[in-house]
Amino acid sequence: MKSLITTLLILCTVSIQLSAQTEDEQMLRKIFDEALTNSKCYSNLRSLCKDVGPRLSGSEGADKAVVWGEKVLRDIADTVWLQDVMVPHWVRGEKETCALITEDETIPLAISALGSSIGTGEAGITAEVVEVFSLDQIEKLGEENLKGKIVFFNRPMEARLINTFDAYSGCVDQRSSGARTAAPFGALAVLVRSMNLRDDNLPHTGVQRYGDDTKKIPAVAISTNGAKQLSRSLRNDPNLKVYINLSCKNNPDKLSYNVVADIIGSDYPDEIILVSGHLDSWDLGEGAHDDGAGTVHSIEVLSLMRQLDIRPKHTIRCVLYMNEENGPNGAKKYAAESKEKGWKHAAALESDRGGFSPRGFSFDGAGDINKKLLKYVEQWEELFAPYGVHQFDIGFGGVDIGLLKDQNVPLIGFVPDSQRYFDFHHAKNDVFEAVNKRELELGAATITSLIYLLDKYGVKIEAN
Amino acid sequence: MKSLITTLLILCTVSIQLSAQTEDEQMLRKIFDEALTNSKCYSNLRSLCKDVGPRLSGSEGADKAVVWGEKVLRDIADTVWLQDVMVPHWVRGEKETCALITEDETIPLAISALGSSIGTGEAGITAEVVEVFSLDQIEKLGEENLKGKIVFFNRPMEARLINTFDAYSGCVDQRSSGARTAAPFGALAVLVRSMNLRDDNLPHTGVQRYGDDTKKIPAVAISTNGAKQLSRSLRNDPNLKVYINLSCKNNPDKLSYNVVADIIGSDYPDEIILVSGHLDSWDLGEGAHDDGAGTVHSIEVLSLMRQLDIRPKHTIRCVLYMNEENGPNGAKKYAAESKEKGWKHAAALESDRGGFSPRGFSFDGAGDINKKLLKYVEQWEELFAPYGVHQFDIGFGGVDIGLLKDQNVPLIGFVPDSQRYFDFHHAKNDVFEAVNKRELELGAATITSLIYLLDKYGVKIEAN
Repeated sequence: MKSLITTLLILCTVSIQLSAQTEDEQMLRKIFDEALTNSKCYSNLRSLCKDVGPRLSGSEGADKAVVWGEKVLRDIADTVWLQDVMVPHWVRGEKETCALITEDETIPLAISALGSSIGTGEAGITAEVVEVFSLDQIEKLGEENLKGKIVFFNRPMEARLINTFDAYSGCVDQRSSGARTAAPFGALAVLVRSMNLRDDNLPHTGVQRYGDDTKKIPAVAISTNGAKQLSRSLRNDPNLKVYINLSCKNNPDKLSYNVVADIIGSDYPDEIILVSGHLDSWDLGEGAHDDGAGTVHSIEVLSLMRQLDIRPKHTIRCVLYMNEENGPNGAKKYAAESKEKGWKHAAALESDRGGFSPRGFSFDGAGDINKKLLKYVEQWEELFAPYGVHQFDIGFGGVDIGLLKDQNVPLIGFVPDSQRYFDFHHAKNDVFEAVNKRELELGAATITSLIYLLDKYGVKIEAN
Repeated sequence: MKSLITTLLILCTVSIQLSAQTEDEQMLRKIFDEALTNSKCYSNLRSLCKDVGPRLSGSEGADKAVVWGEKVLRDIADTVWLQDVMVPHWVRGEKETCALITEDETIPLAISALGSSIGTGEAGITAEVVEVFSLDQIEKLGEENLKGKIVFFNRPMEARLINTFDAYSGCVDQRSSGARTAAPFGALAVLVRSMNLRDDNLPHTGVQRYGDDTKKIPAVAISTNGAKQLSRSLRNDPNLKVYINLSCKNNPDKLSYNVVADIIGSDYPDEIILVSGHLDSWDLGEGAHDDGAGTVHSIEVLSLMRQLDIRPKHTIRCVLYMNEENGPNGAKKYAAESKEKGWKHAAALESDRGGFSPRGFSFDGAGDINKKLLKYVEQWEELFAPYGVHQFDIGFGGVDIGLLKDQNVPLIGFVPDSQRYFDFHHAKNDVFEAVNKRELELGAATITSLIYLLDKYGVKIEAN
């Protein structure tokens, strides 16, 4: 008798497990079907790119983006509110010229000032150039070699790295810290090779930061073709000069907003599962991949839930962060308010790696949260396989959600295929047309599927 | 003592296995490194697209492509030869116009004749339109509804299918068999919705085949936007007319060539491992993804082996097939000569799904060869994982190598990400600029890696 009961119990358990599996399979299929046939993410992206356009923090575009995000989310979420954020207000200005000057000729070079760079003054800067490949070289060269010169950082991204974000990480110190490293040795300006794996004529901007006590000198990005040309020319003529003229400047900080929208959870309204992208973008393109894609992905999670009548147990919160690019003040503000008010985040996901074909997720968190989270999500690997979603790894979550790490929030980065990302990143070709509709929709479905599973089964992960 | 010997033997075996694993890991790393830093596949593709250009069988472009392929391969392979192939010689001609005519207005529609379509004659065809969604509908509608009409096949590709080739397979009968199905019922011409998952204005051409005994009627592709517009207009005005004027025609067959190049194997010179793409393309674009990518992938396998000083045991043969698009006469000729001469193919691989980020391989073959081949290759799955290559499935090998199936050749299709393929397929935007350098290079490295492993460990797979 006992053995019969045991057998029945086992059969029952197996059958419940099987039916849960089938149910989940069916729900993921529904999510993908809906995303590929009725999703609004592509038209939302068109609207964000074309109606709003570039939206650097402090700009009119950023103000419009906040209005846009609030309006789109009001049609979907239970509640939408704006969270005040003070943001930098850097403006590029009208003038942005650069030329390579040899004895024989003057050749224009395509550049873009880096975010927070000061201008050159009306007269511009004309000086000889010292080519370097790392920050370390600066100290070795010292004032005797650098004083009165323009320092040209020319270390390329490492093409052999399969994950292009690793190649970016290995290079970006030149951009973020080049000026503050070279300034103390009397350099007049820095020119930084664009973070781009292609050879083309597009300068890629991005943030750079001055030290608190170091002199501020102009900092600009030069295209990869421009960098190669300058490097070649320097070999022929080490005394050539470069002329830079920039009218960019830093205005006083401005008030802006994170846009926060919730679908309130039925069972655990106070436990938040957060999905996010950032609303701000650089000013050169339309911020389509960076981070229009993450913005519309995050909106789409709520939207698909509504369309499929998924009523979440936890509160599903979409945060469109302001000022990721040259902040992240929006993320700081959100994390501070979360800490102050004791908001409980069951998990936080960020999409900020473009709108490409989905590959998987990377898991992050304080202590061993990343490992526990990975292990937990791996149980669903087979559910994702039919959609080509196969990468489940420990790794970076995202800049914005990263600030929730010390609140022990399990963090998830959405990982699309990385090969094309840096073709567009922070450059003027990061426009709506660079995003493929299906790839974007598959990303939205992938993220929604994981959020669905996390909500259904809960996330009870705590740091050791 | 015996147990000591056993232990030693086990240790020895384990250590040999480990070192083979490490050796293979290192070799794949070298292949990927070389492909990402010194590969010629991207510049070869530029040359094929820009110096040669479109290369439909029978065209001057196709003749130039043969010369191009032979020249490129002469610098790499031990032997290069041309295999005679008689190919169709269809020409689009100058005139290709279409208009939607209502009582109020005449609206031009973007069309492209389908390959092998006859022209309309000078006066063109003006007739009412019957919209259908499947071949089955034709017989049901019958002569009373179709006689004197233009049949408009408007079944869209199924967006819900994750593999876009499945969506293509589910639709392409309209294009390949629309005309021969509708002609017996008195239809004057067929208009076929382009095989494209996007909404845009580009007609996508492709092959269509007349029946041996059926009347030939003109057959054209209409863009997806055009198809939607026509469908809408028909709802408002079922009696609207469409005007089509085409000057395309079929000329007598012409002599052309497959280009065949070998690196002779050191141990098994008579056992061939074949890699292939097709050299011909449609005439509208530059055939960059279809199949410039497969062409340069296949060349690159030999090239990377040379650059890395890999001396294969088997003969590695690169075949650039002629006339895949409206044939496949090149493949037929190659298979026939193989059968006649008893060539032994250890395996054959085809790359004809574009130059996108690699995902994996599909395995094909007579009887249970596909399953055995899959099982054999799966032992190397972990070697491919660091490169994002994760799909190893039973599936279609390729049109050209498919003709070797009845010679019991194990067949392998290279599988890149499929999401963007039909944005470009057979349309004028299939140009060099649509291919990403890194994605192309990663594909070349992925294929080369598998060919390397197959050569090193051999392929002893036979049909049951």
